[in-house]
Amino acid sequence: MTREDCLALDAADPLAGHRALFEIPAGVIYLDGNSLGALPKAVPARLAKVVAEEWGRDLIRSWNTAGWIDLPVKVGAKIAPLIGAHPDEVIACDSTSVNLFKLAAGALALRPDRHVIVTEPGNFPSDLYILQGLADLVPGLEIRVTPRAELADALDESVALLLLTEVHYKTGELHDMTALSTKAREVGALTLWDLSHSAGAMPVNLTTSGADLAVGCGYKYLNGGPGAPAFAFVARRHQEAFKSPLTGWMGHAQPFAFDDDYRPGVGMARLLCGTPQVLNMSALDAALSVFEGIDMGMVRAKSIALGDLFLTLVQDRCDGLSPACPLSGAQRGSQVALRHPNGYAIVQALIDRGVIGDFRAPDILRFGLTPLYIGYADVWDAVDHLAQIMATEAWREPRYAEVAAVT
Amino acid sequence: MTREDCLALDAADPLAGHRALFEIPAGVIYLDGNSLGALPKAVPARLAKVVAEEWGRDLIRSWNTAGWIDLPVKVGAKIAPLIGAHPDEVIACDSTSVNLFKLAAGALALRPDRHVIVTEPGNFPSDLYILQGLADLVPGLEIRVTPRAELADALDESVALLLLTEVHYKTGELHDMTALSTKAREVGALTLWDLSHSAGAMPVNLTTSGADLAVGCGYKYLNGGPGAPAFAFVARRHQEAFKSPLTGWMGHAQPFAFDDDYRPGVGMARLLCGTPQVLNMSALDAALSVFEGIDMGMVRAKSIALGDLFLTLVQDRCDGLSPACPLSGAQRGSQVALRHPNGYAIVQALIDRGVIGDFRAPDILRFGLTPLYIGYADVWDAVDHLAQIMATEAWREPRYAEVAAVT
Repeated sequence: MTREDCLALDAADPLAGHRALFEIPAGVIYLDGNSLGALPKAVPARLAKVVAEEWGRDLIRSWNTAGWIDLPVKVGAKIAPLIGAHPDEVIACDSTSVNLFKLAAGALALRPDRHVIVTEPGNFPSDLYILQGLADLVPGLEIRVTPRAELADALDESVALLLLTEVHYKTGELHDMTALSTKAREVGALTLWDLSHSAGAMPVNLTTSGADLAVGCGYKYLNGGPGAPAFAFVARRHQEAFKSPLTGWMGHAQPFAFDDDYRPGVGMARLLCGTPQVLNMSALDAALSVFEGIDMGMVRAKSIALGDLFLTLVQDRCDGLSPACPLSGAQRGSQVALRHPNGYAIVQALIDRGVIGDFRAPDILRFGLTPLYIGYADVWDAVDHLAQIMATEAWREPRYAEVAAVT
Repeated sequence: MTREDCLALDAADPLAGHRALFEIPAGVIYLDGNSLGALPKAVPARLAKVVAEEWGRDLIRSWNTAGWIDLPVKVGAKIAPLIGAHPDEVIACDSTSVNLFKLAAGALALRPDRHVIVTEPGNFPSDLYILQGLADLVPGLEIRVTPRAELADALDESVALLLLTEVHYKTGELHDMTALSTKAREVGALTLWDLSHSAGAMPVNLTTSGADLAVGCGYKYLNGGPGAPAFAFVARRHQEAFKSPLTGWMGHAQPFAFDDDYRPGVGMARLLCGTPQVLNMSALDAALSVFEGIDMGMVRAKSIALGDLFLTLVQDRCDGLSPACPLSGAQRGSQVALRHPNGYAIVQALIDRGVIGDFRAPDILRFGLTPLYIGYADVWDAVDHLAQIMATEAWREPRYAEVAAVT
């Protein structure tokens, strides 16, 4: 595979035109869209309008006239087709971490006779920490942290909830959402899927997989900007009985009645808590326009091809790096992960050359592949830089001091 | 008092120059800054820079290079002097409602042998609802909803926490924070003060009043924009033992170590949960510049004078409206509240004339007085419109249908 071959693949790529929807700085190959998605061109003008006209000129009236009050539902409905949900099953609000708390606590209320939540070690920290905080609050709750290979066996009739991240944030490993959701349902347990590294990167079908609950991030592959609102999904069959523990005024059936007693809003509205963050939410709303008319199957095919290309080129050209992600595209999310004891310093050297990936302690080099703005030649160039870096003597021996500086 | 008298007061007002720091639309008298503060002129350029340069150009690096990661602490430290707190006692994050949950649950953990939270009926809905949600989760927790006059007597040694809003959102009535905090301390109870209608409008001194915990809103008198992050305060003496129930990754002692086990961050950092909403947070950060070098005693004096003027003019010129707020400025926050069965329609008629207040069910007309951008002639003109409206036949009889349409 030569650089020319990659340019030919880009020329034939039906998604190549989507890159023009983003601001990608000159001289940068951005392989960190799994941490912060690039800026969609639709965002700056939208935000300027929200600030100058909606806030500055129309002031409080914009809750109605500009539809601020409807943004969580509207943005949720835009996310729904990307994750195989009905529009009334998704709402945008708060952060992924806060939504994890709502849904995990809500799951316990749906399974009041059960006191176990199953998850896996190495899950994204918030997924683990939020459960630990919940266990401090709810007497008798057991968090059963179970290695991946034993998860299916850990599901029994004591289990209220299985909480997993579909695509592992470090290694990119994929869970089989359908198989695990099916197994959970067989024992009467609910499933809560963290889609932070799936939504917008690959097809997800919460409905056909039988998932009960889900959360996900607005600022990774959905490109909603730093600290964008997250989303939450509750399958229709659970909505009427669902109780959020974070019963803020915006989740009330009639927020502007200012009643003293909480009554949950209809459907997903009860997942709201405080006032929606309108600036971040408007940016996310505008950002989602890049997905209009898109075929997520096509996105997935390109994502796998980019990952396969990356891994093949690394194998051929870079000494000393071992893969930390599945080699099989079907088992891998939209990222490549490599392992090296000097990972931190190597990532810094890449960044100095304009190739932006990131480092995850203790030794993972992580490269997100966003098919909407990354092309085959980008991958070729990124690995070319990596090969040049790895060819220098400096990386032959671990330099633990630099790793320690980060962790 | 004539309009000319009011113009003379404006000419002599040492705060009059602050109005130039805000975008106030021509033809609008904005008396709703207690619902959504007006746009500070510093915000649009800051947000444009955050979007184009920090997000668009510098991408993920901006967490460090633009200081995104420090924004919650930095913004908290800017709010601290407005509420009589030390800079390391305040952090900006999440919504007021979410922070209420953190602090109420955290208070229970600080008083593990007590199972009562005292609050008052008619408190802002989230303050009540959040406690109700917490009680659903924590077995044995009793929410003791006690009328204002009996609050001090309701404090006994079973009480873990007293949660009150310093300035009542509808009526503007002030609690005596020092007296109630002192009474609470005498029985070993903690206090949690909601400062949503105080912070930025009047001097608050959490330290000298002996308050333990506080929350407040970023988008009212702090002018941070729609859905701005809220703030949370934990007195230094409680920080080391404080446990937030919302243990997201950003509250971890070392978020980027990606450990499996939660360890709370130092001081207020443990109040963080998910990723900070950088766009809304940057707007709030820029907005707070209007308070640089300001004397909050001077703000308070003008606020009381504006309120007294408003109430006197209403008494003199408007038939059929009764005050719903204290007539004494010392007992009133920075707002005036009036009562009328047709309140909703009267507020709409005012808005049609460019006088923007708001309506709170069932019968309250609410007018926020933000001394930084409201002047004496504004108050004169607002009441002049109100007098003209009240002089028409249409408002003599209640029209319940319109009230019902809102509630």
